[in-house]
Amino acid sequence: VDTLQSVSAKCIKASWYFATHTLIFCALVDCQPALWKMTENCFMHHRTKVLTIDTMNPNVKKVEYAVRGPIVQRAVQIEKELKAGAKKPFSEVIRANIGDAHAMGQRPITFFRQVLALCSYPELLEGNEFPEDAKERARRILQACGGGSIGAYSASQGIECVRQDVARYIQERDGGIPCNPDNIYLSTGASDAIVTILKLLVCGEGRNRTGVMIPIPQYPLYSAALADLGAVQIEYYLDEENCWSLDVSELRRALVAAQQHCSPRALCIINPGNPTGQVQSRQCIEDVIRFAAEEHLFLMADEVYQDNVYAEGCEFHSFKKVLFEMGPEYSDTVELVSFHSTSKCYMGECGFRGGYMEVINMDPDVKVQLTKLVSVRLCPPVPGQALLDVVVNPPRPGEPSFNTYIKRTSTLQVLAEKAWLTEEVFNTVPGITCNPVQGAMYSFPRISLPERAIQQAKEKGQAPDMFYCMKLLEETGICLVPGSGFGQREGTYHFRMTILPPTDKLKIVLEKVKQFHQSFTQQYS
Amino acid sequence: VDTLQSVSAKCIKASWYFATHTLIFCALVDCQPALWKMTENCFMHHRTKVLTIDTMNPNVKKVEYAVRGPIVQRAVQIEKELKAGAKKPFSEVIRANIGDAHAMGQRPITFFRQVLALCSYPELLEGNEFPEDAKERARRILQACGGGSIGAYSASQGIECVRQDVARYIQERDGGIPCNPDNIYLSTGASDAIVTILKLLVCGEGRNRTGVMIPIPQYPLYSAALADLGAVQIEYYLDEENCWSLDVSELRRALVAAQQHCSPRALCIINPGNPTGQVQSRQCIEDVIRFAAEEHLFLMADEVYQDNVYAEGCEFHSFKKVLFEMGPEYSDTVELVSFHSTSKCYMGECGFRGGYMEVINMDPDVKVQLTKLVSVRLCPPVPGQALLDVVVNPPRPGEPSFNTYIKRTSTLQVLAEKAWLTEEVFNTVPGITCNPVQGAMYSFPRISLPERAIQQAKEKGQAPDMFYCMKLLEETGICLVPGSGFGQREGTYHFRMTILPPTDKLKIVLEKVKQFHQSFTQQYS
Repeated sequence: VDTLQSVSAKCIKASWYFATHTLIFCALVDCQPALWKMTENCFMHHRTKVLTIDTMNPNVKKVEYAVRGPIVQRAVQIEKELKAGAKKPFSEVIRANIGDAHAMGQRPITFFRQVLALCSYPELLEGNEFPEDAKERARRILQACGGGSIGAYSASQGIECVRQDVARYIQERDGGIPCNPDNIYLSTGASDAIVTILKLLVCGEGRNRTGVMIPIPQYPLYSAALADLGAVQIEYYLDEENCWSLDVSELRRALVAAQQHCSPRALCIINPGNPTGQVQSRQCIEDVIRFAAEEHLFLMADEVYQDNVYAEGCEFHSFKKVLFEMGPEYSDTVELVSFHSTSKCYMGECGFRGGYMEVINMDPDVKVQLTKLVSVRLCPPVPGQALLDVVVNPPRPGEPSFNTYIKRTSTLQVLAEKAWLTEEVFNTVPGITCNPVQGAMYSFPRISLPERAIQQAKEKGQAPDMFYCMKLLEETGICLVPGSGFGQREGTYHFRMTILPPTDKLKIVLEKVKQFHQSFTQQYS
Repeated sequence: VDTLQSVSAKCIKASWYFATHTLIFCALVDCQPALWKMTENCFMHHRTKVLTIDTMNPNVKKVEYAVRGPIVQRAVQIEKELKAGAKKPFSEVIRANIGDAHAMGQRPITFFRQVLALCSYPELLEGNEFPEDAKERARRILQACGGGSIGAYSASQGIECVRQDVARYIQERDGGIPCNPDNIYLSTGASDAIVTILKLLVCGEGRNRTGVMIPIPQYPLYSAALADLGAVQIEYYLDEENCWSLDVSELRRALVAAQQHCSPRALCIINPGNPTGQVQSRQCIEDVIRFAAEEHLFLMADEVYQDNVYAEGCEFHSFKKVLFEMGPEYSDTVELVSFHSTSKCYMGECGFRGGYMEVINMDPDVKVQLTKLVSVRLCPPVPGQALLDVVVNPPRPGEPSFNTYIKRTSTLQVLAEKAWLTEEVFNTVPGITCNPVQGAMYSFPRISLPERAIQQAKEKGQAPDMFYCMKLLEETGICLVPGSGFGQREGTYHFRMTILPPTDKLKIVLEKVKQFHQSFTQQYS
C-alpha cells in the first residue's frame, strides 16, 4: 500500500510522459486495479484539454452561420484541389454564396479610393495626381483625426464630423426630417451594430427571457446573435406566395404564440429583404410600426440594401421617415434603430467594415450605457469611417469628380437587369419558382426535390437543400447557400444565389444551375 | 359606469396626447379613482420605453471601461468649452489617458502607409512615386483579395497569405519554433480576439460558472468582457513593492479562494504589463506555465506590448517560446492563446484595428467552433489586415525602403527615454512613488491622498483617485485615468498616464502634475 500511495502521489504531479511510463510499468507488473485507476486519472488530467466541445460555451455551439458554413469550407478545399492540379468538371469555383461585389469583379468608385489613398498617405496631398474635391474631403477627415492621422483612435461613437455628415445624409434622404448626429453611432459593418443593440435588449430567465422577432427566411446573423446571447428567436414567416411580403396578422400570430414561453421585446425587419429580396410598401411599414407601438416592441430596421431597389413600382421607404410621417403619437414614442453599411449599394466596400446606426427615441440612460458598451472596443476602424464619410458626402454637381462619380448609377442599372434576368431564367426551369428580386442582391428560388433525394439527404444527416447545394458545388463549382441556412417553411426547399456575377458569367451560372436541376431531378426521380 | 368604461376603453387604444387630455378631463370632472388609475396605466404604457435602464441587459450595466469613462467625457466637454471661447487656466486638453501614439504626434511609418495607399488606389501602382518594395507588397496583398480589391470580404480567419506572413514572423521571433498559419486568426485589434476567446470559455451556472484569473491592476477590457459575459472575475494582485511582479503563490491564493464559489478555467497574463509596465522574467513565465499546467488552466497571454521594452536588463520572452523550451510535457498539452496588435509598438496604428491571435494546443473541435464564431462577423477589416501584413513583413536589407524603415527604432529609443524621465520626475514628488516603466506605454504611480480629500470624494460618491483626476483635469487640462479603473489594493490610489506625449510636452505635463499634486496635498491637509 505504501508503494501504491507513493507511486500515485508522484503520479498526481507527473507529466504526460511520466504518466505514460507509469502506465506501462503498471501493465508490466500487473498491479492492482486501484493503481490503474489512479494512474489513469492522472493520465487523463494531463491529456484532457481545459476547453473541449463538452466544456465550451453551449450558446456558441448553437450558433450557425450558413453564409460561411460547410458549403463554403468545401468550396475553399475544391479551390485548393484545383490549384494542385485536380481534374474537375469545371475550372473555377464561383462563389455566389455571398454579396461580395468586388470579389465578383465590381470596380471600386474612383473618388472613394482616392480619398482613402490620400488619408492613408497624406504626402499625396502635395502632388497633382488627385482632384481637388478628393483632397478637400481627405483634409477634412484628417483634421478630425487625432494628430491628423487615421492611425489614431477615434471617439468610440465615431468621428464627430463623419457623424454630422451621416446625419445630413439621412435628413436629405428623408425629405428634411431632422437627424441628430448624437443619435448616430458608427460601427464595424452593420453586423457589429445589430449585435450591440440585441445585446442591450437581452435579459430575464425562463419565461421572462427576452424574445426577438425575426423574419423567416432571415439573414443568419440574427439567429447566430440570438443563439450566442441566449435569447429566444421568435419566427414570423414571410409570405412566399405574395412576393415574400410581410403580413401583420402573421406578426401577431407569432407574437401571441411566443408570449406563452418568453418575453417578446423587439421586432427585426430586413428591408429590402435578405435573402428574399422583397421591398416593403409604405403601407406595410406603417402597419408594422403601428403593431410595434401597440405591442410595445423595440423596432430594429436592417436597411443595408436601401439603395438596391430594382423592381418597377418599388421604392425604398425608410422606417424613420414613415415613423415621423405618422405623427408625434408614434414619432415621439416608438423606439427604432436603423442600420446601414458601406458594404452594399453601388459601392460594395465590404472589406472596410464601415457602417452606422441611427437610434431614435432611445431612453437617455440606455444611450449612456450604449456609448459605454461601444467604448470597450475603443472605436470602429477609422478607414471604414473615412469611407463612410465620402459615401454620405460624395462629389456634388460642379465639383471636379462629379461627372465620373454619377456613372455609379450604372452599377445599379446593371444589377436591376441581372435581378430580372435571374428571375426570368429560373422560372423557365420546371421545379424552380422564383419571386421577383425587387431589391437587395439575391434571388431565393424555391426548388422541388424528388422524394428519393430527400431520403438520401436524411440518411446522410443533411438538410435536403444542403445535399442539393453540395452536389451542385461538386459538379459545377457553383457555391450557393441552402435555404435551410436562412429558415423556410417546413417541407419547402430553397437556395440563395447572389445576382452579383458579371452578366456574362451570371448567364453561364444560371444555365448551369438549370441543367444541374434537371439532371438532379432525373437522377432521383 | 358606462361613461367610465367607454372613456377607459378609448383610452387603452389612445395616444400619448389623448391620454394627456383624458387626464386633464379627469382632473376637471373629479371622477372616480378607478378612472384615474386606468387612465394612468394607459398614459404609462405609451410613455414607458421598451428598453430602459431597469429592463436592459443587467450584465451590460456592470461593464466599466475607465480608459474612456467619465473623465474622458468631461475632457471632451472641456475641449468644446475651450473652442467656444471659455476661459480656463490652460489652453488645451492633453489626453494622456490612452496609448494613442499618432494622436500624440507620432508619425506613421512611411513604408506602411505607402503600401496602404497603393492597396486603396491600385492605379498608383502604375506611377513612379512609390518604391518598388512597397509596390511589391501591395501587389501581393491585392492578389490575395477577392477581385484584387481590399473592398472584398476576406476569409473570416483572415487573408491566407497574411496569416502565412504572421506565422513566419512569429517563427523568427521565437528562434525557429514552428508556427502553423492555421493557428493564426486575424482580428479587429487585439480586443476583438480576447473577447472571442473569453466567450468560448464561459459556461456553467452558480458554483460551476467559469472563473477567469486576471491581474490587478488590469487593463479594463478584461473586467468589462467578463462582466458582459457574466463570468467570474478572479483577481490576483501584482506586487507593487517588487516592480509589479507576478508571484505564483499569489496566483495560488487567488485560485484556491475562487474555487469555493466558481470554476476557474483560464488565466490571463498581460506582459509587458498594462497599466503597470512591468516586463516578466523568463523564470516567472515558466512558473506561470507550470502553474497553469498543474491547475488545468487555459492560458491567455496579452502580448500586445511585446516590442515596447525599455528597461536595462529586461527582455521580452514570448509565452509560446518559453512553453516550447519547457519540453513536450508542456508544449504538447498546455492550451495557450497569444494576442498581438498593430496599435502599439513603434507603429502605433490604433485606428486600423489590426491584430491577430495564435492558438496553441486548442482542441480541434473547439477550433472549428472558433472559426464558425468569427465567421458570423464576416471578416476583420481588410485595411487592418494589409497593415498587419507589412508590419510582420517589413522592408528587408537591400530593399529600397530599408534605410528609411530602420529609423523606426528611434521611436522606441525616444519612448525609453520618456519612460525613464517619467519615473524620475514622479519620484521627486513627495507623495508620489513610481515603479520603473520597464515596458508598454504607461506609468502607474501610486499617490498618497490626504484623509480630507478621501472624505470629500466619498461624500461625492467618487473613488478618491477619480476625485483627484477630475480636479487635475479641471485645473490643468491633463486627462489621466484613475487607478480605481484598473483595480488596486484597497486603500491605495494610483493613476495611469501614457508616456507618449512628445518629450517637450511630457516634461510640461510632468511638471504640471507635480505642482498639482503639491497644491492638492496642501489644500486637503
